[in-house]
Amino acid sequence: MDYLNELGARSKQASRVMNRLGQAEKNKGLLHAANKLLSEREAICEANEIDIKNAEEKGMSKPLIDRLRLTDERIEGMAEGLRQIAALEDPVGKVVDSAVRPNGLSIEQIRVPIGVIGIIYESRPNVTADAFGLCFKAGNAVILRGGSDAIHSNKKITEIIRGALSEAELPEDAILLIEDTSRDTAREFMRLNRYVDVLIPRGGAGLIRTTVENSTIPVIETGTGNCHVYVDESADFDMALDIIENAKTQRLGVCNACESLLVHEKIADAFLPMVHKRLSRKSVEMRGCERSTGICADMVKATEEDWGTEYLDSIISIKVVSGVEEAISHINKYNTGHSEAIVTKDYENSQRFLKEVDAAAVYVNASTRFTDGFEFGFGAEIGISTQKLHARGPMGLEALTSTKFTIRGNGQIRP
Amino acid sequence: MDYLNELGARSKQASRVMNRLGQAEKNKGLLHAANKLLSEREAICEANEIDIKNAEEKGMSKPLIDRLRLTDERIEGMAEGLRQIAALEDPVGKVVDSAVRPNGLSIEQIRVPIGVIGIIYESRPNVTADAFGLCFKAGNAVILRGGSDAIHSNKKITEIIRGALSEAELPEDAILLIEDTSRDTAREFMRLNRYVDVLIPRGGAGLIRTTVENSTIPVIETGTGNCHVYVDESADFDMALDIIENAKTQRLGVCNACESLLVHEKIADAFLPMVHKRLSRKSVEMRGCERSTGICADMVKATEEDWGTEYLDSIISIKVVSGVEEAISHINKYNTGHSEAIVTKDYENSQRFLKEVDAAAVYVNASTRFTDGFEFGFGAEIGISTQKLHARGPMGLEALTSTKFTIRGNGQIRP
Repeated sequence: MDYLNELGARSKQASRVMNRLGQAEKNKGLLHAANKLLSEREAICEANEIDIKNAEEKGMSKPLIDRLRLTDERIEGMAEGLRQIAALEDPVGKVVDSAVRPNGLSIEQIRVPIGVIGIIYESRPNVTADAFGLCFKAGNAVILRGGSDAIHSNKKITEIIRGALSEAELPEDAILLIEDTSRDTAREFMRLNRYVDVLIPRGGAGLIRTTVENSTIPVIETGTGNCHVYVDESADFDMALDIIENAKTQRLGVCNACESLLVHEKIADAFLPMVHKRLSRKSVEMRGCERSTGICADMVKATEEDWGTEYLDSIISIKVVSGVEEAISHINKYNTGHSEAIVTKDYENSQRFLKEVDAAAVYVNASTRFTDGFEFGFGAEIGISTQKLHARGPMGLEALTSTKFTIRGNGQIRP
Repeated sequence: MDYLNELGARSKQASRVMNRLGQAEKNKGLLHAANKLLSEREAICEANEIDIKNAEEKGMSKPLIDRLRLTDERIEGMAEGLRQIAALEDPVGKVVDSAVRPNGLSIEQIRVPIGVIGIIYESRPNVTADAFGLCFKAGNAVILRGGSDAIHSNKKITEIIRGALSEAELPEDAILLIEDTSRDTAREFMRLNRYVDVLIPRGGAGLIRTTVENSTIPVIETGTGNCHVYVDESADFDMALDIIENAKTQRLGVCNACESLLVHEKIADAFLPMVHKRLSRKSVEMRGCERSTGICADMVKATEEDWGTEYLDSIISIKVVSGVEEAISHINKYNTGHSEAIVTKDYENSQRFLKEVDAAAVYVNASTRFTDGFEFGFGAEIGISTQKLHARGPMGLEALTSTKFTIRGNGQIRP
């Protein structure tokens, strides 16, 4: 705990300096860090090689090793990411709201950095630079806790960024890495309220659950998405098929991919065979309710568990529903509050769906795959929040800020 | 746990209905509840009498019994509170931000109810009506967990409001009271993530700490305030004295009262005796640093513990500092992020203080006592947040809402 307390105190101290920096100084740090990552490319690859070797010896699967690997291209991507962040507008200092009260007090609510942000993530080492960049631009210090698999890569990247900050006369403790990757230390980190203002887990459902269960620091829950597409009676079939194919297959394994299809009973006979044909071409396994399997006999039977499952794979569950009302209540029962879509030509049903579905992003006649900071025009994304406090949906720089009331008076006292 | 799960499911169900209600229907419910509280005044007083009797038998202190007592006036206050909430503008449905993307997707970020809000509070039974009113107006269902001391009063108030909602054909489960006031049940309530979207503890530091420590539901921390007034070298002495007296003594025992005074060393010799004179008249105990007691010999010596203490009493700690820099770092070390004030004529020092002090509300030349939803013009207040996520400072109706992205397309898929 002494180790974490020391890191926490240093980070808090750095956050005080960060709070005073202007946009130009922060951008200078980001651009210098980007250059350093490129010029130290070889050192990064060497460190990464150790992680890769260890992973291979441990028998890690190919896809996971691929996520761990830093190529020249990926390092360029990290540097380019920092440059893009430097180009974004700084949200700090903006007046969110203001009022002059009858007694003459002038109240402004202004955007300020959060302070110290903790990020807990899994195996992708490029998150190290990415998360640093976003937190830094919003005026925060960041404490990173990456996975043990990527520890050598993460250490090297952190070291390079710290060096760059130091050369730019900026606080190098604005980025700190927890080098002890034990679970105990992770759990202690989750209770470092004294120094850490917010914790953002980036990773799979298990990591997020562990963080929510154990953290006493406010957490922003990101990510799991059991997303639905509901095809209404009046839907344009071609549009619906395109949206389903895109939402399910454009990229598997992402949180905004469609995991479940709901179809209005009046069109099920005509439409489900078309879905079956379209998704079969893409080798998607279809798990249907009883009515669906009655229409398409070679669908697998779905179980109760399927309705609540985020497959992140080439599988989709399919259910016939009696209409928009059942669609909404099914979604509100099984979804994870991420992204939901209706395909319809009916005005009233579109309005009901938008209003009543409880999710961060609700779509009419578009693919769920658009739930993304870049697609929404934020220019960056630290994650997609599926909770309702603070930030909901894709989070850009603004989600990494808080607000503060500043009040200017001339001697006012409360009567 | 079955009991809580049942309450949770009912509350979630009610929140779905609440989400669909318009402002007129919600106001109808609030006004009808207000009328019912007045017409059932006697029944409330009878129930309250049982709580008062039990408290007296337990030997509860007079001030606490006073907080527990419901008089005609207080019941009128509860009804008037609901009427005032009905008169407030409904934040639900407002467009917070919007964009049309190059691909034609129209994205709106709109204000929506949070869903189910849990409130954990202590002995004041009037919080029951008050918290219900604010949550209800923002379109939420509320689950209340009050203290055991007020259980009979709380049950009666809840019963009356539920009856009023039912008569107005609104979901009576929009207000539910946990009638089992055991600690175990409270702790289980704090882990009811499946149904409860946010938990707001209203009460003393102990309650807030317990909630933060035990809750897996996102918590909005409210309340404790170790607030400072810093008197700068250039301060107008009369203004400073008025502000200190007001911030310390206008009302003791509130979170925005001043607990600690910092004075610039260059004015300490002249100014501290004036402070001493002014606060002595109000029987305030002064606990000073070594330099302060050197100037005013009859001050008590402050210990390290004093700097971090929220007295909520007729006591103030006093420290001489070398200037605005030391004042800021002292405050950032010991404060609770609530309300902080500087008294100064110096432009640069005022700017530094506003920027660098880490608190929800930072004042120049005004009393810290203004940190309050009504004083800020919100028309209501559910509490004062001292955390940095979601809401910071006085929380009005808007803090009881979330946002949601609604996206309208015409068949867009992600390339």
